Amino acid sequence: MLKAAILGATGNVGQIFLRLLNGHPWFKVSVVAASERSVGRTYSEVSRWRQPTPIPEDAMNLGVVSIEPKDVRDVDVVFSALPAEVAGKTEKNFAKAGYVVVSNASAHRMEPDVPLLNPEINCDHVSLIEEQRKRRNWEGAIVTNPNCSASVLTLPLKPMYDEFGINKVMVSTMQAISGAGYPGVPSLDIVDNVVPFIGTEEEKLETETLKILGSPKEPADFKISASCHRVPTLDGHMEAVFVELKRDADLDSVVASVESFVGEPQRLRLPTAPAKPVVVRREEDRPQTRLDRMEGGGMSVVVGRVRRDPVLKGVKFVALGHNTIRGAAGCGVLNAEFLKAKGYI
Amino acid sequence: MLKAAILGATGNVGQIFLRLLNGHPWFKVSVVAASERSVGRTYSEVSRWRQPTPIPEDAMNLGVVSIEPKDVRDVDVVFSALPAEVAGKTEKNFAKAGYVVVSNASAHRMEPDVPLLNPEINCDHVSLIEEQRKRRNWEGAIVTNPNCSASVLTLPLKPMYDEFGINKVMVSTMQAISGAGYPGVPSLDIVDNVVPFIGTEEEKLETETLKILGSPKEPADFKISASCHRVPTLDGHMEAVFVELKRDADLDSVVASVESFVGEPQRLRLPTAPAKPVVVRREEDRPQTRLDRMEGGGMSVVVGRVRRDPVLKGVKFVALGHNTIRGAAGCGVLNAEFLKAKGYI
Amino acid sequence: MLKAAILGATGNVGQIFLRLLNGHPWFKVSVVAASERSVGRTYSEVSRWRQPTPIPEDAMNLGVVSIEPKDVRDVDVVFSALPAEVAGKTEKNFAKAGYVVVSNASAHRMEPDVPLLNPEINCDHVSLIEEQRKRRNWEGAIVTNPNCSASVLTLPLKPMYDEFGINKVMVSTMQAISGAGYPGVPSLDIVDNVVPFIGTEEEKLETETLKILGSPKEPADFKISASCHRVPTLDGHMEAVFVELKRDADLDSVVASVESFVGEPQRLRLPTAPAKPVVVRREEDRPQTRLDRMEGGGMSVVVGRVRRDPVLKGVKFVALGHNTIRGAAGCGVLNAEFLKAKGYI
Amino acid sequence: MLKAAILGATGNVGQIFLRLLNGHPWFKVSVVAASERSVGRTYSEVSRWRQPTPIPEDAMNLGVVSIEPKDVRDVDVVFSALPAEVAGKTEKNFAKAGYVVVSNASAHRMEPDVPLLNPEINCDHVSLIEEQRKRRNWEGAIVTNPNCSASVLTLPLKPMYDEFGINKVMVSTMQAISGAGYPGVPSLDIVDNVVPFIGTEEEKLETETLKILGSPKEPADFKISASCHRVPTLDGHMEAVFVELKRDADLDSVVASVESFVGEPQRLRLPTAPAKPVVVRREEDRPQTRLDRMEGGGMSVVVGRVRRDPVLKGVKFVALGHNTIRGAAGCGVLNAEFLKAKGYI
Repeated sequence: MLKAAILGATGNVGQIFLRLLNGHPWFKVSVVAASERSVGRTYSEVSRWRQPTPIPEDAMNLGVVSIEPKDVRDVDVVFSALPAEVAGKTEKNFAKAGYVVVSNASAHRMEPDVPLLNPEINCDHVSLIEEQRKRRNWEGAIVTNPNCSASVLTLPLKPMYDEFGINKVMVSTMQAISGAGYPGVPSLDIVDNVVPFIGTEEEKLETETLKILGSPKEPADFKISASCHRVPTLDGHMEAVFVELKRDADLDSVVASVESFVGEPQRLRLPTAPAKPVVVRREEDRPQTRLDRMEGGGMSVVVGRVRRDPVLKGVKFVALGHNTIRGAAGCGVLNAEFLKAKGYI
Repeated sequence: MLKAAILGATGNVGQIFLRLLNGHPWFKVSVVAASERSVGRTYSEVSRWRQPTPIPEDAMNLGVVSIEPKDVRDVDVVFSALPAEVAGKTEKNFAKAGYVVVSNASAHRMEPDVPLLNPEINCDHVSLIEEQRKRRNWEGAIVTNPNCSASVLTLPLKPMYDEFGINKVMVSTMQAISGAGYPGVPSLDIVDNVVPFIGTEEEKLETETLKILGSPKEPADFKISASCHRVPTLDGHMEAVFVELKRDADLDSVVASVESFVGEPQRLRLPTAPAKPVVVRREEDRPQTRLDRMEGGGMSVVVGRVRRDPVLKGVKFVALGHNTIRGAAGCGVLNAEFLKAKGYI
Repeated sequence: MLKAAILGATGNVGQIFLRLLNGHPWFKVSVVAASERSVGRTYSEVSRWRQPTPIPEDAMNLGVVSIEPKDVRDVDVVFSALPAEVAGKTEKNFAKAGYVVVSNASAHRMEPDVPLLNPEINCDHVSLIEEQRKRRNWEGAIVTNPNCSASVLTLPLKPMYDEFGINKVMVSTMQAISGAGYPGVPSLDIVDNVVPFIGTEEEKLETETLKILGSPKEPADFKISASCHRVPTLDGHMEAVFVELKRDADLDSVVASVESFVGEPQRLRLPTAPAKPVVVRREEDRPQTRLDRMEGGGMSVVVGRVRRDPVLKGVKFVALGHNTIRGAAGCGVLNAEFLKAKGYI
Repeated sequence: MLKAAILGATGNVGQIFLRLLNGHPWFKVSVVAASERSVGRTYSEVSRWRQPTPIPEDAMNLGVVSIEPKDVRDVDVVFSALPAEVAGKTEKNFAKAGYVVVSNASAHRMEPDVPLLNPEINCDHVSLIEEQRKRRNWEGAIVTNPNCSASVLTLPLKPMYDEFGINKVMVSTMQAISGAGYPGVPSLDIVDNVVPFIGTEEEKLETETLKILGSPKEPADFKISASCHRVPTLDGHMEAVFVELKRDADLDSVVASVESFVGEPQRLRLPTAPAKPVVVRREEDRPQTRLDRMEGGGMSVVVGRVRRDPVLKGVKFVALGHNTIRGAAGCGVLNAEFLKAKGYI
């Protein structure tokens, strides 16, 4: 068993890392780190645990340490669930100290030598680690997973991009409140309401999508426009996508291409890899956020309503993914599994 | 005072017609008609009133009559809040019997000789009434208002279409539950959920938009693609719109054009006409469904987040309108006011 | 493996029976029965499946039969998820035909020779089957589980009743929408709303509680008053309970009594029996509906905020239970397990 | 016109004070005071206005001042919407400086020389002002309105107490999220959830109810037990009440007594006084939170489901009131109107 530390272990994503790593066949959480006010007490004392399953027994009595490399000893991998403003410096400190940091934070995602992995799509980007180590002169590494809405969008786009080419993408999201963490969205702002703005989300969705679908060195070459909205759901980001394809394609071919898509995590049979990264539903009213967000344990994206687009030469469809599993901690765990399988951990 | 009948007076839209006509300076509801099982009892007995204001005193003791022209006597105008499947035949019966029917139903909207009026935009379409009467050989008339999502979309598109031309529109909606009437959407289908499908809504939004923005004889000549979704809000349809303009336009010009837009109802100072049909908000997080749906008494559409689109040569923005007021009964009342001002009633 | 039929298999509770029996060690669903309009088609065609887990593979291709004994062949037990108005006659028909009917319907619950079992509490009431058979002259049997709110209330009351005696109970409920089945509560009636009325619920909660806590022949001898309310939650009934005890008891004794309570299902290690029928939480803000409803797989009731009552000589507390698991299908399955263990099936 | 200052003008209750005083016939807001970080900017710049009606024009350009008496000049009355922890000291400072402070904060409510007014019930408690001034040696005064849930409960209890006497009250509340202010309840804590705990609410509801229904010198002499719960509604506290009366009373008498109840504000025809402080509904499913909370402009309490209680010799019923109007700012405005009518302002 490899030993893992969680940075930011008391926050919402930190709790989900703990939940997903509970009983994991390869990783065992041995260190939980959080902000200074929690240090020195046990995890069960300081985490206001809000998950539907109980605190993992192993974690309950761990003493919380600070998010300093000197306090995080004897671990094989570091998962970062830190907020962006703290992650920037802290994750570098850990990489300098020789740790492989698997991060859910946005701080380093768009740096050219940092892999931004949605592993079914671009695990070849892991090669950036060599460059990162050389350029930054450290022995550790920072590997990131995408923003929640980009995690969901890129999975169905990947097979379309490979098989038919993409010219243009317009995407309008309906995002769940858990995407904002805890305490996050005040209830007075979201009950019986839609908020058509999520700070920096549209930029992230647009730029990260191109980086993920591109080569390690170059972003993908299509154009993308996003409009991001918060709706009153707990978990699960729904996205309405309009795609202009490069080559003409009938609907059946597009659906077949998306439905048969698998990636390296499936071939490697990684523990957290879902059987199908993208599941296609044919009912006229699916996917639905509450009913379908746990598909593949929350690691599959569910696509539905694939239809010809009357404006763009291409298709429109909706895609749904679980924002804190595929869109955050679950993708981080899958990244760590991939890094382990490839010998980076 | 002109006397009005409401067909389908006990349903959700029927109740809103009554609410909006309560205290109206020109119209007074003197007849309420509904399905057979309500006939012969008083309105207060049969309507399970669900509005936040009390049943109008005048209406409480009206006896409910059947939706037959022979039972609806001595009225100057007939408002139809009937479901589509009943409206088709019934509204024709009333037009044949000489009544002007102001309808919220979809049954006749797309017929080439039936005006589909969002009156700030296309009140010149009222000229179709002559053709309708000639062709159908009746003395009454059927005039319709648009589907709720088309009512909202077309208002901000109108000034853009006139001033800059439009090539393409992609629109993704987040629609409230009241759009489905009562009982409508089961709560188990919408609490903590998004349903990415509303039967026939996308077709209506696409075709009605082009008819409204076109001339009386010809639909507008741009392309439009819609993706419609139900979200857990009570009232108010939010729409994320991507528009490719014909002519290049800087953001300020687009905003100025939308913001200064007024139509005939404003010039005629019709009682239900809002001061501004489209209100532009400049905050980064407005409009919001719950906070802004009652703008202009629910008759204004609120536009926000107007920004350049990185894909289409044009703009993207969000628009919010009240689906049962501007998108249904309120638009019907405004249509009736216009018809009265022009001598049709 | 024993073979089971589900009557009313397409409804909400019917679906949950199927979900809970999927992979059950003793029972296998071999017949699904529903109303006439579904007969002759496969279960996957007619059930609009709305559960978060997929349709059990075994059930997908079962042909739906009518709810007549002659069409339900070769089964060892019949689970009834029928609506009350249909259940009355149908369940009798099955009992006459020799079947043991494990029913979630209210139709027969209060008949003096019908066991109303919340099995940790009163499995001795099973003795009523003998009387039922004799009096009704049939070889089958009808055994019922309680109304959802009574299932939840009676579990924590049982140890208090046994150890300290009860004089009076006042209970105010906050019940989830799934309690009304599907389509059930219209969303316009419950979004941003509380409805302080659920038809016949208060009577059921008051009378069933006394029957369950009484002897097979006599109801319990305390007084009870209920006020029942629907709130906008999906699953889980929360109940605020004020109890006047017969004997003085300090808080610790009451908590200890509730916390240590186990019943025959635990002693028999029945597959669906939770380790603890009642779990006591000590945090000031637990149980919470969404976080705690799945305790014990939805079979445990979670009690919290146990405090002295300043009015009645006794305690007040809140109790939360899953209304469609402990409060419906789960309790039915546990009843069937108990009947099997005792040789009735 | 009298000039008014609002302390804590940017918070939720502060905004509602501004909304309710907009167009008030007697009072005009001339000073808005808030915490240091807002001082020196205009109200429209610093208040993140979240009301469904626009910022009152008069208030928009007011410069925000600090909550110090020296900065609040030339006003006739001071409304306090401060949080409790700030209100304690600040309100005293204003009273010392000679101002009449009409406070919504809990800080001074239970002090024996501070009137806690729900003015239809106990406006004679205003006599405590004399004692307060003497004892504290100041020329100003502090007058408070009750906690939101006590405001609602006490109105229907008052006529019962006067006419039949009360022995015992058990009350279970279902309270809206706006009761916690802004940002208040995180959405992750309340969507699809009930939280059976609101800090210090039960104590406030129990003690304030007795003070309000008592004489200026002595609390009422019955016993009361409360259980308080947060439910996912925006505005409106629903309360399920069980009352043991001193004297036997048939239901009709109780209803008649509640329905005919009026107080001094009605006799004085104060501008904010509703025609009926308590409205009784006879439908089996009313009041409902969303449909009835604005009764009497949010100043009436709506009572329904009055029925005999099978446990206590008395009645049970539900009561609904608007927590930020009758339960906060509206009650404060009514208090100020009463003080003005009686010459205290």
